[in-house]
Amino acid sequence: MLTVDLNCDLGESYGIYSIGMDEDVLQYVTSANIACGFHAGDPSTMRKTVSSCIQNKVAIGAHPGFQDLQGFGRRNMHISPKEAYELVLYQIGALNAFVKAEGAKLNHVKPHGALYNMAAKSCSLADAIAKAVFDFDDQLILYGLAGSELIKAGKSIGLPCANEVFADRTYLENGTLTPRNQKNALIKDAEEAKAQVLDMVQHKKVKTITGKEILIQADSVCVHGDSAEALVFVKMLREKLLEEGVHLETLI
Amino acid sequence: MLTVDLNCDLGESYGIYSIGMDEDVLQYVTSANIACGFHAGDPSTMRKTVSSCIQNKVAIGAHPGFQDLQGFGRRNMHISPKEAYELVLYQIGALNAFVKAEGAKLNHVKPHGALYNMAAKSCSLADAIAKAVFDFDDQLILYGLAGSELIKAGKSIGLPCANEVFADRTYLENGTLTPRNQKNALIKDAEEAKAQVLDMVQHKKVKTITGKEILIQADSVCVHGDSAEALVFVKMLREKLLEEGVHLETLI
Amino acid sequence: MLTVDLNCDLGESYGIYSIGMDEDVLQYVTSANIACGFHAGDPSTMRKTVSSCIQNKVAIGAHPGFQDLQGFGRRNMHISPKEAYELVLYQIGALNAFVKAEGAKLNHVKPHGALYNMAAKSCSLADAIAKAVFDFDDQLILYGLAGSELIKAGKSIGLPCANEVFADRTYLENGTLTPRNQKNALIKDAEEAKAQVLDMVQHKKVKTITGKEILIQADSVCVHGDSAEALVFVKMLREKLLEEGVHLETLI
Amino acid sequence: MLTVDLNCDLGESYGIYSIGMDEDVLQYVTSANIACGFHAGDPSTMRKTVSSCIQNKVAIGAHPGFQDLQGFGRRNMHISPKEAYELVLYQIGALNAFVKAEGAKLNHVKPHGALYNMAAKSCSLADAIAKAVFDFDDQLILYGLAGSELIKAGKSIGLPCANEVFADRTYLENGTLTPRNQKNALIKDAEEAKAQVLDMVQHKKVKTITGKEILIQADSVCVHGDSAEALVFVKMLREKLLEEGVHLETLI
Repeated sequence: MLTVDLNCDLGESYGIYSIGMDEDVLQYVTSANIACGFHAGDPSTMRKTVSSCIQNKVAIGAHPGFQDLQGFGRRNMHISPKEAYELVLYQIGALNAFVKAEGAKLNHVKPHGALYNMAAKSCSLADAIAKAVFDFDDQLILYGLAGSELIKAGKSIGLPCANEVFADRTYLENGTLTPRNQKNALIKDAEEAKAQVLDMVQHKKVKTITGKEILIQADSVCVHGDSAEALVFVKMLREKLLEEGVHLETLI
Repeated sequence: MLTVDLNCDLGESYGIYSIGMDEDVLQYVTSANIACGFHAGDPSTMRKTVSSCIQNKVAIGAHPGFQDLQGFGRRNMHISPKEAYELVLYQIGALNAFVKAEGAKLNHVKPHGALYNMAAKSCSLADAIAKAVFDFDDQLILYGLAGSELIKAGKSIGLPCANEVFADRTYLENGTLTPRNQKNALIKDAEEAKAQVLDMVQHKKVKTITGKEILIQADSVCVHGDSAEALVFVKMLREKLLEEGVHLETLI
Repeated sequence: MLTVDLNCDLGESYGIYSIGMDEDVLQYVTSANIACGFHAGDPSTMRKTVSSCIQNKVAIGAHPGFQDLQGFGRRNMHISPKEAYELVLYQIGALNAFVKAEGAKLNHVKPHGALYNMAAKSCSLADAIAKAVFDFDDQLILYGLAGSELIKAGKSIGLPCANEVFADRTYLENGTLTPRNQKNALIKDAEEAKAQVLDMVQHKKVKTITGKEILIQADSVCVHGDSAEALVFVKMLREKLLEEGVHLETLI
Repeated sequence: MLTVDLNCDLGESYGIYSIGMDEDVLQYVTSANIACGFHAGDPSTMRKTVSSCIQNKVAIGAHPGFQDLQGFGRRNMHISPKEAYELVLYQIGALNAFVKAEGAKLNHVKPHGALYNMAAKSCSLADAIAKAVFDFDDQLILYGLAGSELIKAGKSIGLPCANEVFADRTYLENGTLTPRNQKNALIKDAEEAKAQVLDMVQHKKVKTITGKEILIQADSVCVHGDSAEALVFVKMLREKLLEEGVHLETLI
């Protein structure tokens, strides 16, 4: 039976600043990536979000990012692999404390934003991040861009890995996402986005912006919960997948 | 046989800023309290300090503090018990990640600076901190000012506790430390400081600034490693205790 | 002719986190207090807010607060008068850079949150803040709680001062605000709030929670722009004041 | 008469963390670049350093850097030109507050670390920084790597500019510094370093690592004050320059 995981970035509020419709989207996803206080999130938000995930039976992952709250971890920072290892290990531990205190178990780790993108391409950064996850707990699932250096690094060190795909982003022939500053980077039509996901999940392929089809492994689909519109899409995508007989399930 | 623990705050460097003679003092103490990145310390310093403790067979503790790097966690902040719980849990988890990655085990938790002082007096803050430690791991030892609210809270929730005493600070009749802004707050004479420790360890009492003797429980003595002079004192104190037949040992 | 200033805290967004309906409320107020990057605000928000104030011909003030983004500057921090002087001077300068770059002029300074409340009561803190404002520019208007230590400190050093009053807060007999944790701290009825403001502006008095009337000087009324409801109230208050012949004008 | 400026980065301490021998090096230099609280420095250090500069009649400059205290502003961050403009303007204003409060005048601006290096090469970043300086005060001198994009941007907008050269760094044929990760990047021999400075100041040329001589404009020489060894070199360099009849003077 075909199975796929739906994951969403959560717990991105900070202090009095509230973003995301976390409680709503938790009803539709199977995994959540929780910000760990560096690019977003704070101890209070982390605790609350962990608790909501447990109530909704959603798998909990750490979502470590650069220490750049002002830039929301979206600005590339040139850190060394050693610094990446330490940055990620610190944040996994911090989030895990809230999971442990609730008697639950951390399921996965997915780097955030610029760190995710840089680790998709840089072998040394990817290795460092994979090692941090592995050294903390070799049963944790490492989420990365499908087919990226991060997935290769995770497999190489012996971690279970989740190839992540995107519903609303287009792909280049080399399997990477079309950069956001290019037109055609985003898929704005919901039907098209659903079709792309189904193609990836059912047929392990995606049509790139040049029209060429490439192979892609879709273990988990990244969805968003930051607007009413995003929620509608997640709900629709979920229904479509179930309708097509795809089982929605956390990876194990 | 009489036993006492010697503990020291370590890992207080940050980025390019280096303080403390950590490698030196690790040869004399039995426990280390490592800063967790809020009032001092960063992921790199934490990793390195954890590794040094393991090499020197010194017990590792988390040393959580207020998020006030500029004030080194020494300025009182009016946070709620809920915030204290979250603040402490986050920092314990962050430090524990480095300990876990090295295959070692976290031994204790000691709040830092203003958080330590406030928790010594505030019952609600003490309860929140004790609960954070307990929820993370009920085998962790909670360090607090001897006889303080923090020790009471730890015992009440069922944590093993360590009553901490000071060699170089004088005591008031109610068992609290003479505030630093009062004269006679510090014991500057090394012989006097050693004598005070011996009295506390061997006879469970201390002479207060009024001359009156009070009972005190000395499970662990706090020493410093931030100057050559401090190191000389730790070495002397260590020798004196051993000479007197006091066993130096991490609490268990 | 009776004149009063309507002021509002603005520019409290941070990075991707957006709060406040700044553009809307700017149409109703005469003065804005702009966050300076410590408790809220960032260089980008500051620049944009300064520019909006200029466009709307609203007087620009610096709104310095504690370095506590997570607590939005609302948590008391025990800093020394020297630290308060430096904290305030730094933030005034930072905001002024954006004002200067636009060819405009900084009009006033109003401490934020916990710093405002602490400076209302602490003479030494108030003196330090007043001195920071004075040393930067002795023509700046210092905003503080009506009749507070901060106003006294400002007058004593020779600064023009604005006694600030609140529409939606009740008063104690000593002229301070009823603490938020007490019931009756807030005035939730819009008519009552408008009446209180009119009483303060027209008759220089306010009825305290005990029923006793006290004298109060109302140079500026603090209003809020963080919700649609708040905006409706500001608009209503503005209309009522104009209707009663009160002139709305920035202080000079 | 030949004239050159000797500049040094100062005020890089933070909270309890103290670095640099600021008081000593101030006796030898003619200009100081003071950290503004983002990559180093805090309001207290800024105030104290400004005051020391005034006492020593050393010209005061702002030294803005990336908001990366942990990396000391040495890690490249991919910020937009708009963000660079705002970052620099904020920090100039913050430092200027302390200068203004002392009745002194800000003399120059020199970006720090990674921001300095990136602005030396990126035209858009250089333009943004030059505009921030210009918008604040068009009389401020912009310091940048001799012949770099930053100097070009400064001249283009109409700012007085200072071409900065290094005593202890080697040069590539294109006039940029040999990257630190290459061997031969540093000149460790004091005589060689002095000779390089003299050559640059007296003959407007420097011998690159390939042996080829290139033209270079030396308005200001960057020296260091972070170790006893560095101080000895500054003193020697100063004496040598005076001996050769070179006048040491702040740029105007």
